Amino acid sequence: MYAIKWNGDSVVILDQRLLPLNETYHTYTNYMDVLYSIKDMEIRGAPAIGVAGAMGVALAAKNVASESVDEFRQEMNRIIDAFASTRKTGFFLFIALNRMKSMLDTPGGVRGIRDAMEAEAVKIYEEDIEINRTIGRNGSGLIQDGDVVMTHCNAGALATAGYGTALGVIRAAVEEGKKIEVYACETRPYLQGARITALELFRDGIPVTLITDSMSGHFMKAGVIKKIVVGADRIAANGDTANKVGTYTHSVLAREHGIPFYIAASVTIIDPDLKSGEEIPIEERTVDEVAFVGREQIAPEGISIRNPSFDVTPAKNITAIITEKGLIENPGVNGASWILKK
Amino acid sequence: MYAIKWNGDSVVILDQRLLPLNETYHTYTNYMDVLYSIKDMEIRGAPAIGVAGAMGVALAAKNVASESVDEFRQEMNRIIDAFASTRKTGFFLFIALNRMKSMLDTPGGVRGIRDAMEAEAVKIYEEDIEINRTIGRNGSGLIQDGDVVMTHCNAGALATAGYGTALGVIRAAVEEGKKIEVYACETRPYLQGARITALELFRDGIPVTLITDSMSGHFMKAGVIKKIVVGADRIAANGDTANKVGTYTHSVLAREHGIPFYIAASVTIIDPDLKSGEEIPIEERTVDEVAFVGREQIAPEGISIRNPSFDVTPAKNITAIITEKGLIENPGVNGASWILKK
Repeated sequence: MYAIKWNGDSVVILDQRLLPLNETYHTYTNYMDVLYSIKDMEIRGAPAIGVAGAMGVALAAKNVASESVDEFRQEMNRIIDAFASTRKTGFFLFIALNRMKSMLDTPGGVRGIRDAMEAEAVKIYEEDIEINRTIGRNGSGLIQDGDVVMTHCNAGALATAGYGTALGVIRAAVEEGKKIEVYACETRPYLQGARITALELFRDGIPVTLITDSMSGHFMKAGVIKKIVVGADRIAANGDTANKVGTYTHSVLAREHGIPFYIAASVTIIDPDLKSGEEIPIEERTVDEVAFVGREQIAPEGISIRNPSFDVTPAKNITAIITEKGLIENPGVNGASWILKK
Repeated sequence: MYAIKWNGDSVVILDQRLLPLNETYHTYTNYMDVLYSIKDMEIRGAPAIGVAGAMGVALAAKNVASESVDEFRQEMNRIIDAFASTRKTGFFLFIALNRMKSMLDTPGGVRGIRDAMEAEAVKIYEEDIEINRTIGRNGSGLIQDGDVVMTHCNAGALATAGYGTALGVIRAAVEEGKKIEVYACETRPYLQGARITALELFRDGIPVTLITDSMSGHFMKAGVIKKIVVGADRIAANGDTANKVGTYTHSVLAREHGIPFYIAASVTIIDPDLKSGEEIPIEERTVDEVAFVGREQIAPEGISIRNPSFDVTPAKNITAIITEKGLIENPGVNGASWILKK
């Protein structure tokens, strides 16, 4: 099972909306399909979206027929902007698209740019897996043998090019021989925890227990949860972290109960231009994600619904941010952007 | 729309599992149907369950054919015990069943007992509506014009004989001419907030916005939520309160943000025999309630799932308990059982 693969002249994407019952892969040769795949959340997770954006652009470079370098660049810039407007909170997408954009300066005409874009997309993909493995190694020491670790949403293999960030830390701890049990919050409205995290861990043979999101406080108070590890979509310079909505709620409960609360993420998503989390743009998605679960309509017609996809956890609620460059301990005091200079 | 009605020789119950799309009422003449209606959550909400238990017993008194008072009492005691085993956390059911049981001492043979049981069940029903209206009046002063009030689960007309406890407070404030908006948490797994609270308020013309449970922290931090009012299923002598799972989580967030957190409930559900919330039995329901939303399976096969239906909010997190006898202010300091002597 994987979220995305590059096939030379096509992109293969797992339709995560159909999980856990159907494992269906789509093969796209047109960049517009990749764009809608991101928009409609066939593929999701900040790193996976970044990889998909890069591969979508590489595919577009093959789709755009012009042999005039100027015309080609103009069209590619338009397409890159279109990808940038699909999801606004995650930062990895913008980083990946900027890397793709810089390939437009490659010499060798349109063909040279095309080849460079393909190579860069594959590089972004491969680097992400390597980054995640390093995050896993850097974070696994924080997890003790016998821990019950809670996570929210899916920051696993299917949210990334592979291995995962938060689940990468758990995988690395398990690979070291530690016995770990995971409590997965189902993560309404999109149910990434129930549909994706639970499935990923079950297939890996890591014991997983599913709970609804609002049960987290109950199981923290009961002493069941020993650690919390989640991913991130964007981190401000001061360490404030945007992640799937509900993360902030869990972080307050973790502090109330003295439970370590870890973010696992690449330094790539630290946005040094944002002073604090207040400045992180929060995507608000269609209300139908809340009103329907699959075909089931759960809300009456006519009412108002809110659906912010992310929330911001203040740095003070975070015990440490686990990155490929090491730990950012106590970001509430130290901030996060210093690690970029490391 | 109503949860339950007594029809002389039958009980009419709204099938709340089919809301919000279908408003279907079942007419039951056999007490076993009422018993399964409680067990399977066609009817839910601590006060409504209590009324249903009483009416189910009154119906059983008509179903039991014996004319020997001793045999009749024996059979009725067995049936009352069966009702007591349907749902274990809510306290109103046990109070209502004890009241029904005491009718077994009525003179006048089996017929005398039957008539007394019917009268008592109707009295429990009518008293509940009156209690809720008084709770509403006692609590409405806590809600200011323009407030956005968050609630969890459904403590409304459909959780009671009518009017509601938490929603009764909101209704009373609206009846006083205050402009109130309600944020309803959807309340996974059973979705009482989405399916029932949102519907009740919408039909009453009270503006309601639906959010998922884990968004509560986000909207508290954003300054949107001004007050929180929820119901209760059982209250220990010290003020610790069992209510729908997720209530505890919201209470911690409310304290973090300095938002008043109110419980609205009848003094009937204060259980003076329980020193603290630790002693309240917590019902754990079938995992299918988490794994499925209607026909939609959202969790993979083979994983572990937890489904505690309730959690306990410590008295220290509660600003006041609003009862028909007045406010229990600051129960974390004063406890709750003193009001029973008032």
